[in-house]
Amino acid sequence: MAAGWGLKERKPFAFCFPHEELVALFITFEGGEGSGKSVQSKALYRRLTRRAIPALLTREPGGTRVGERLARDLKWARNFSISPLAELLMFNASRAQLVTEVIKPALLEGKMVICDRFADSTIAYQSWGRELSLKLVKSINDVATGGLTPALTILLDVPIEEGLARKSGRTPDRFEREDLAFHRRVREGYLRMASEEPGRWLVIDGCQPKAAVGRLIWERVRELL
Amino acid sequence: MAAGWGLKERKPFAFCFPHEELVALFITFEGGEGSGKSVQSKALYRRLTRRAIPALLTREPGGTRVGERLARDLKWARNFSISPLAELLMFNASRAQLVTEVIKPALLEGKMVICDRFADSTIAYQSWGRELSLKLVKSINDVATGGLTPALTILLDVPIEEGLARKSGRTPDRFEREDLAFHRRVREGYLRMASEEPGRWLVIDGCQPKAAVGRLIWERVRELL
Repeated sequence: MAAGWGLKERKPFAFCFPHEELVALFITFEGGEGSGKSVQSKALYRRLTRRAIPALLTREPGGTRVGERLARDLKWARNFSISPLAELLMFNASRAQLVTEVIKPALLEGKMVICDRFADSTIAYQSWGRELSLKLVKSINDVATGGLTPALTILLDVPIEEGLARKSGRTPDRFEREDLAFHRRVREGYLRMASEEPGRWLVIDGCQPKAAVGRLIWERVRELL
Repeated sequence: MAAGWGLKERKPFAFCFPHEELVALFITFEGGEGSGKSVQSKALYRRLTRRAIPALLTREPGGTRVGERLARDLKWARNFSISPLAELLMFNASRAQLVTEVIKPALLEGKMVICDRFADSTIAYQSWGRELSLKLVKSINDVATGGLTPALTILLDVPIEEGLARKSGRTPDRFEREDLAFHRRVREGYLRMASEEPGRWLVIDGCQPKAAVGRLIWERVRELL
């Protein structure tokens, strides 16, 4: 499989990046707090690299020096009042830098890119959660991504209470302390996006054992290779 | 003059902030490096407060805790590669927070607001200077400002070489080290904006003595009070 995958075999992957010919898969992980995104994105990355498939694992917010700094700022700003609009622009500043500096060059080199959270997080949290206009959030996301859309987005869906309980060992930040209604809106947003674009989204019940979740993800990714 | 100015006397000032009734003047200072914006904005602020006119002086990027942090990030990021798009979004994140937290509440209270740089700086530097699309820059600016436009924008115009020489005592950051062509484009952008909206812009030759510049500014501001 690894041998057949790469720059030479230009498969028409189902994601768009206007004006550029990209040949590699872009896969994102989405979900609420404690849904297992980082565990599963790392597991997928290991599976790929064990098979010598060129891949890159990154995350949002962060993934670049500028982005990691913005991620720290966003975490810090959650302890006092930050406007949802400033937050939206900061997440997208981190995203713009990540797309330009990391994701786009890797895809152009033929590397598969796995990203722990991407633009859909901003739709779920800033539009569904914080109730900023969906049109506004989408338009700022589009500016930052330049139209880059994942070929596959894996939604790890867990009930709100379960996800928050999984995270209870850690110091909660403002997002985590938000009331349950906020997290319910975020989950609803994710499920709505997935139902509207079933070809791009793979919804997985994140309450299953890690190994079972990992197998379901791998089954789907293999089909795309 | 001071007595007649304030909430009771709702003058129809020529700036727009859709959907809200604002009663106070919003004045911005623009210009290239070393043009004297901070000196003159402080001088105007002192003139107003000496006359007991309620006023607030702020600046961009910065002016809020989030904004000052972003200003430090932007300064830091200039020492390596940051994408012009990420920069655009960071300046506007700082702006969104400043408008929400500082400018809008002050204007609603009837305070005159003076801002050292505002959205026009982003048009001059990111669009004319860095050559991002003007339409894109304006659309992101509009999101961050919510449509707030200054009643008066004072452009302190100085020749590029003169402005950079005035700043030569300081450690130059990336903006200041940019080639002269960049600074020429920025200046051209400012002059173009001023010529397109002569009612809003006051262009002053910043090479004149400080006191003379201050008098010209004060003459114009008095007309608006």
